[in-house]
Amino acid sequence: MSDTDLDAYCRTHQPRFVDELSAACRIPSISADPAHRDDVRRSAEHFAAAALAAGFQRAELIETAGHPAVYAERLADRRLPTALVYGHHDVQPVDPLEEWISPPFEPEVRDGLLYARGAVDDKGQVWMHLKAVEAHLRVRGELPLNLKLVVEGEEEIGSVHFDELVTRERDRLSADVAVVSDTPMFARGVPTLCTGLRGLAHVEVEVTGPSVDLHSGQFGGAVANPAEVLARMLASLKDPVTGRVLVAGFYDRVREPTEAERRQLATLPFDEQRFLEEAGGAAAVVGEQGWTTLERLWLRPTLEVNGSWSGYSGAGHKTIVPARARAKLSCRLVPDQEPDDIAERVAAALRALAPAGVRVTVSASPGGRPWVMPGDHPALRAARAAMRHGFGTEPAAMRMGGSIPPVATFQERLGLPAVLIGVGLPDDQIHAPNEHFDLDQYARGVRVVSRLWDELPAALSGPAA
Amino acid sequence: MSDTDLDAYCRTHQPRFVDELSAACRIPSISADPAHRDDVRRSAEHFAAAALAAGFQRAELIETAGHPAVYAERLADRRLPTALVYGHHDVQPVDPLEEWISPPFEPEVRDGLLYARGAVDDKGQVWMHLKAVEAHLRVRGELPLNLKLVVEGEEEIGSVHFDELVTRERDRLSADVAVVSDTPMFARGVPTLCTGLRGLAHVEVEVTGPSVDLHSGQFGGAVANPAEVLARMLASLKDPVTGRVLVAGFYDRVREPTEAERRQLATLPFDEQRFLEEAGGAAAVVGEQGWTTLERLWLRPTLEVNGSWSGYSGAGHKTIVPARARAKLSCRLVPDQEPDDIAERVAAALRALAPAGVRVTVSASPGGRPWVMPGDHPALRAARAAMRHGFGTEPAAMRMGGSIPPVATFQERLGLPAVLIGVGLPDDQIHAPNEHFDLDQYARGVRVVSRLWDELPAALSGPAA
Repeated sequence: MSDTDLDAYCRTHQPRFVDELSAACRIPSISADPAHRDDVRRSAEHFAAAALAAGFQRAELIETAGHPAVYAERLADRRLPTALVYGHHDVQPVDPLEEWISPPFEPEVRDGLLYARGAVDDKGQVWMHLKAVEAHLRVRGELPLNLKLVVEGEEEIGSVHFDELVTRERDRLSADVAVVSDTPMFARGVPTLCTGLRGLAHVEVEVTGPSVDLHSGQFGGAVANPAEVLARMLASLKDPVTGRVLVAGFYDRVREPTEAERRQLATLPFDEQRFLEEAGGAAAVVGEQGWTTLERLWLRPTLEVNGSWSGYSGAGHKTIVPARARAKLSCRLVPDQEPDDIAERVAAALRALAPAGVRVTVSASPGGRPWVMPGDHPALRAARAAMRHGFGTEPAAMRMGGSIPPVATFQERLGLPAVLIGVGLPDDQIHAPNEHFDLDQYARGVRVVSRLWDELPAALSGPAA
Repeated sequence: MSDTDLDAYCRTHQPRFVDELSAACRIPSISADPAHRDDVRRSAEHFAAAALAAGFQRAELIETAGHPAVYAERLADRRLPTALVYGHHDVQPVDPLEEWISPPFEPEVRDGLLYARGAVDDKGQVWMHLKAVEAHLRVRGELPLNLKLVVEGEEEIGSVHFDELVTRERDRLSADVAVVSDTPMFARGVPTLCTGLRGLAHVEVEVTGPSVDLHSGQFGGAVANPAEVLARMLASLKDPVTGRVLVAGFYDRVREPTEAERRQLATLPFDEQRFLEEAGGAAAVVGEQGWTTLERLWLRPTLEVNGSWSGYSGAGHKTIVPARARAKLSCRLVPDQEPDDIAERVAAALRALAPAGVRVTVSASPGGRPWVMPGDHPALRAARAAMRHGFGTEPAAMRMGGSIPPVATFQERLGLPAVLIGVGLPDDQIHAPNEHFDLDQYARGVRVVSRLWDELPAALSGPAA
């Protein structure tokens, strides 16, 4: 790794970068909890102030019907390309609190790791961008491109008002490329660019039988049992042998991967034992026949029951026929599945499975479109160079099983390609107790982002590869 | 209906009988709620005092590891047969409280109905026996048989310590016949003797996958989902077309009804529309093919899911693979199924259904044996005569879909036949808000029981029919 003047500045100031990130992490910006409403706003104000301090020309809050986002910009030269950096300043809830070794909003460094809720998801990864801007301006006096920053306050609750915000602010947010640092690397030592995300569709189903729970001796065996009906309906959604979803048309629009894509995935150092450990000690990999685990996670759509409930769940026995049974389901989608279409197909399948003697009501809602980025896009070439600079090795391309709906929003509403360049590690415990950010990854992340600003202009104005 | 001196006494004193029952119903003897522990004891003391006041020679509490039972006796003449009357003084919880028109423990008469928790189940039906004793003693000075009374305090929580109590007190409880007033009539105007009860077996199953809930994007589709696994397992327990339970050996010991039994059931005035209304407005009758609704409820065993739960059930979406899923099941059993055997067979079936990738744990427990009484037993002849005296028409024989485990206990531990003679009505709202006892049924019940004491001695000492 050849060191630049920017890198030297970052290295010198790294202790302060850690202190500043810690200060940002002290604000309990839990978007899901109404009790933290004011904290989320305070967090937004903190990020806006930090953007100005880093050298953005302007920074302000963008109000939504929910929590505010932060917008900042530094327009260096209108002839240069413009990057729109996206991140979020809200964080996940912290429970179970008793499993945290140090309190979630009292950041603490242990063994080179900064422990705090939001340390890596996503305050730390936004902070890399702020510090890269600072480095460019202090060392060179100006940025090599125009930079816009939007840091939303509702990512952890599904970016509920973000589509609307992007539509409303489309002029202000116009750019040539989106840059998102909210994804992990494949593994330590394997720098990674994420080139695909799955979409989401939600379905909730309720099976109603009698108006009240019934005595199982007086009525059991002679009226439909909603808990049993729901079990049969859920069991009918998937082939137990092939693992395929049996909803009509579910796979109709699924874009089949190329042999090259499958070969590329197969080169990644996937460790099944490690995967099972990360999967809470699951006993075995399972899933759709004919696909590897990574293919199942990244290239194939899924349908999962997220929760189900009926009748009595307390201590001892309550011999009833439950009045109703419910389940929440969600599908992860791949290109070119449409969330609306899939949600409605699953809902229709559930309605069609309803037997006589019960009422079945289903509600379906789209959760976000799948997204994929062509691997040869020039912005990715710039990102690969930046990653090489930070980690000294060629980065891998991966896709993610999860969903970041704003990335598809940028593509659809602003026509933007996106670079997903994150330096988190798979064991950072995001969304869990003892979330932490490896401070070496943080330092490398600032180095990567600083270089990305240098690489992007040439890549975006050069000939397409 | 020819009136006797006993009937005249009862009619004269009926207003006081209602007042006394109301006083007993003021005590909130909810056995399920530890907060009412002292109330259950106070209720037992109240019944013991009332038994002495009615003319029993002795009355006392029998302690158990849980709530106390009441024991009372009047031994008229050792040459006469002895009846053991069983009932219970504990009551069901009252929630939802807001649905009660008058408070559950402030008895109120409206339109000839006494509204109170326990009014008919079972304080009122025990009180019929106390008042019949009083009538015999005041009018004639002595009972025509020996009478023992055991009123337990844990019927509504599964008679948990009753088997042990009967075993311990078997000498004191020895008798020639058990008499139980804790069942409803088939319908108003259809006096009924209950000649069969179903048994019970309980099974609880837990499917465990990962140690924690997993991100459905990072792991969904590649690890087993316990909610889906449980749904498939539950769906596999019953044939959706024939309605038959698919557990190996489930029907092996089921005693097939005779054609005469089936014909007798078919004569009962079963009204399907009314049944569906009573079943909380269920949309249709369903169940095991080849059997009528009454046969399904009384002559056939069932398996029902009483409750199931997994994952997230709150508002909105939580896109997880749940760590575990659970369900409670119970079976209603018919002669000659054994609760232990069936519970273990269902547990074994569930264990056998467990697929790779999850851990399945099952706990099984017997809940009570099925019971049936030969329709030509001389005690039933006495009961039929008593019913005719109270209602002016020949009583029907019915079986019940529910379970009263003490009845089988009397048969097994004390060798007693049982007369199940109740005067509740199907719409009395037992176990529900606004439980009530029709005061005309109450008056007829005292009349029936008074006559039963007259009829039993001759029947039990005469030649078998």
